[in-house]
Amino acid sequence: MTELATTGTDLPRLRELNSLSIVRALRDQPPSTVTELSQRTGLSRPAVDVIAQGLVADGWATVLEPGANSAVGRPARRYQFRATAGHVLGIDVGVHKILALLSDLDGNIVHSVRQSVAADAPPADRLAELDNVISACLTGAGKAPADIWAVTVAVTGAVDASGRTSFFTPLPGWGDVDLTGHLASRFACPVQVENDCKLAAVAERWQGAASDANDIVYVLAGMRTGAGLILDGVLRRGYGGAAGEIGALKHVRWLNAPAHLQNCPGVPDTVGPDDAAAWVFNAAREGDKAARTAVSRYVKDLAVGAAALVLALDPQVVILGGGFSRSADLILNALRQELQRLCLRMPEVRASTLGADSVALGALKLSLNEVDDRLFSAGLSAPVAPRRK
Amino acid sequence: MTELATTGTDLPRLRELNSLSIVRALRDQPPSTVTELSQRTGLSRPAVDVIAQGLVADGWATVLEPGANSAVGRPARRYQFRATAGHVLGIDVGVHKILALLSDLDGNIVHSVRQSVAADAPPADRLAELDNVISACLTGAGKAPADIWAVTVAVTGAVDASGRTSFFTPLPGWGDVDLTGHLASRFACPVQVENDCKLAAVAERWQGAASDANDIVYVLAGMRTGAGLILDGVLRRGYGGAAGEIGALKHVRWLNAPAHLQNCPGVPDTVGPDDAAAWVFNAAREGDKAARTAVSRYVKDLAVGAAALVLALDPQVVILGGGFSRSADLILNALRQELQRLCLRMPEVRASTLGADSVALGALKLSLNEVDDRLFSAGLSAPVAPRRK
Repeated sequence: MTELATTGTDLPRLRELNSLSIVRALRDQPPSTVTELSQRTGLSRPAVDVIAQGLVADGWATVLEPGANSAVGRPARRYQFRATAGHVLGIDVGVHKILALLSDLDGNIVHSVRQSVAADAPPADRLAELDNVISACLTGAGKAPADIWAVTVAVTGAVDASGRTSFFTPLPGWGDVDLTGHLASRFACPVQVENDCKLAAVAERWQGAASDANDIVYVLAGMRTGAGLILDGVLRRGYGGAAGEIGALKHVRWLNAPAHLQNCPGVPDTVGPDDAAAWVFNAAREGDKAARTAVSRYVKDLAVGAAALVLALDPQVVILGGGFSRSADLILNALRQELQRLCLRMPEVRASTLGADSVALGALKLSLNEVDDRLFSAGLSAPVAPRRK
Repeated sequence: MTELATTGTDLPRLRELNSLSIVRALRDQPPSTVTELSQRTGLSRPAVDVIAQGLVADGWATVLEPGANSAVGRPARRYQFRATAGHVLGIDVGVHKILALLSDLDGNIVHSVRQSVAADAPPADRLAELDNVISACLTGAGKAPADIWAVTVAVTGAVDASGRTSFFTPLPGWGDVDLTGHLASRFACPVQVENDCKLAAVAERWQGAASDANDIVYVLAGMRTGAGLILDGVLRRGYGGAAGEIGALKHVRWLNAPAHLQNCPGVPDTVGPDDAAAWVFNAAREGDKAARTAVSRYVKDLAVGAAALVLALDPQVVILGGGFSRSADLILNALRQELQRLCLRMPEVRASTLGADSVALGALKLSLNEVDDRLFSAGLSAPVAPRRK
C-alpha cells in the first residue's frame, strides 16, 4: 500500500527519496530519457531533469548525448546507471580450487582468478591462498579493497550465524575458521559467507538453467552430494543456516552414492580416486557394462534424496548441477524415470548450464543483492563502498 | 518504499485509500481514539474524525462512547473494527468426521457442528453429510450463505490447482470430487480447498504451539503421517500444491510407521484397528513391555521422515500434531533423541496444543486471510460478502 498523505513533510528527505526513485528507475534498465524516467517514477519532467543532473554530478549516473543520426525532432539525452561506480567480489573457496570473480554493479565480470589448492591443505594454508587470490584479482582489475562494495565467499558445509561451518565441513580443521573475521580485516564493506550449494542454486536462477523458475531444488552432484533450495524466488537458508543438508540422512542414500562410481570394477590403478568417476562416465558412454551398472546405481541413489526434496517441497524444477552434471547425458533421463516412480507430482528436471563456476557466480549475485538492499533501503549519498554496521 | 510525490492526485481514490488505512489501523487492535488512529496512520485528527464516522455509517466500525467513570478531562470516544460485519467458514472433511466452524471477522467462533462419517463412505454420501453440516452450522449461527465472506475446506491428500486431491487421497473415490465446484453452487464468496496437514500447521502458528515461530515443520502423527511446512511465516503449498508429501517416499519410513502400533502383540481382539494405537499407548504408559517396544519402533520410524524435513529445511520448531499427539508424553522425548542423533542442527520439538480441531481452525484462518487480502488490496466499499472473480 502506498501512503499518499502524511501529517508533515520533511523536504530534504523527500528530495533524497526522489533521487532514490530515479536511481531505482535507472538500475537494470537500458539508458532512459527524462520522459521515460518521469513515466517510470511518477515525478514531473522538470523534477527528473534536476535530479538526474545531480545524480550525474554525484557519480550515480552517466549521460549519453544523442548521436547526430537520430530521428526527427530534437533528440533526447539519455541517462544510464553508472555500473562502474562500485565493484563486488564473489569467491568460491572449494575443496580443490579457489575462484574469485570481480564485477561492476551490473554483474559484468571485470577480472577473475582461479588457483588450485590441495584438498588436505590445513586452514592456514587455504586462507593464505585465498588472500593471494584476492590480491591477484584486485590487482588484475586495478582496484583497491576500498573500491569493493560487498564480498561473498562460498564454502562447503552449512554456514552458521557466525559465518563458520561449525555443523560439518569436509575441509580439515575448517569448522573453527572465522572467515568473516579474516576478511573483515581486509575489507570495510559487508562480508558474508554462504554454503556452496545454496550459491550455485542462486546462480542457476540468475543466469543459468532455472532463470524462469521461482521454486527450485538444486542438486549438486559430485564427489559429495548437496542441495540448495529456492522457494518463491527466495534462497532458503533455514533458521540456523543449515537448510538443504538432507544428504546427512543415510536413509536417502546420498552419503554413499558416489561410491558406486569410485568402486566401479575396471577402473585402472593409474586413475586416482578423484578421477575415477570421470573414467566411469566415459566408459559407460562407450558401452562398458560394469560402468553402465555403476552409473545406474549411482542415479538410483541420487534419485532417493532428490525425491525426498521433491516430495517435501513440490518444486517447479530440479536442477542437476555439480561436477557430474557434465555427464548429464548419462544421468538426466534415468533421474527423471526414478523421480517419476517415486514422486506424486513430477517436476521438470534440467542440467546446470553454468558448470563449475556457478558457486562463485552465486556468491557474486549475493554481493550484488547486498548492494541493492542497501541502495534501496538506506538513504542515498555519493556512491562509495558501504561500511559494515 | 513509500512514494510521497505523484504527478497527479485522484481525490476520490485518495479518500478511499485513507478510509482503508483507518480500517487497517482498527483491524486486530483494541478500540482506539481518534488521536491513536491519527498517530497510527499519519492522517490528521480532523480527517480521521470524518473518515471514522463514515466507516461507522458504512458498517465497518462501531463507536464505544466513554463511560461516566473515566479519568480527568473530556473522555474520548473510541472506534472499534466491526468484526460482525461478516462471517467466515472453516471446515474439516476428515476420514472419520466433518467439523465446521463459523466465526466473525476477528475469528471468534460463533457456532460449530461436528458429525461423524464412515471412513468408507462413498463421495456422494460424504458430500451430502458436508451439505448437512454446513446447513446446521449456518442455521445454528442464524446466518444465510450470503452472510459468509469466505469458505475454506480441508481434505486429506495434496490438493491440486483445481481443488481436487488428484495426486492421492485415502478417501475412496474422492480424487475426482470437484469440491470447489460443489460449494460454489451454494456460496458466491471465495471458496478454497486445502490439505489438512497444511491447515493444521497454519492453526498451530495462529493459536497453537508455534505462535512465536516463522519456520515450522508440522508433523501430523496418526493412523496416517503427514507434514505441513511454514517458512518465513508463509504456508508452503509447492508449485503444484503437493508440498509436505515426503511420507510417500518409503525410504523415510512414514508409510508403515503406524503399523508398529496396530500390529503390537497383546492388543485384545475386542479392540478394533482404529483404536489399537490408543490401546498400545495406554499399555505402554502402564509399563507393558511389548507396547513400549512398539511405541519405540514407531517413534524411530516417525523420526526418519521428520529428520528428512528438518535436514532439508532447518526449521526453528517441529510441532507434533495429529491424533497421536495426545500421547506426546510417550513420544516427544524419544523423538527429540532420535532427531538429535540424525540432524545437524537441532530444532525445538513441541506438542500441538490444539489437538483434533486444528485442521478446521487452520481452514478458518485461511478464510480470514482471504478476507484480509481482499480488504487490503481491493478498494473499500460497504461491508458485504465479496464475490468470486
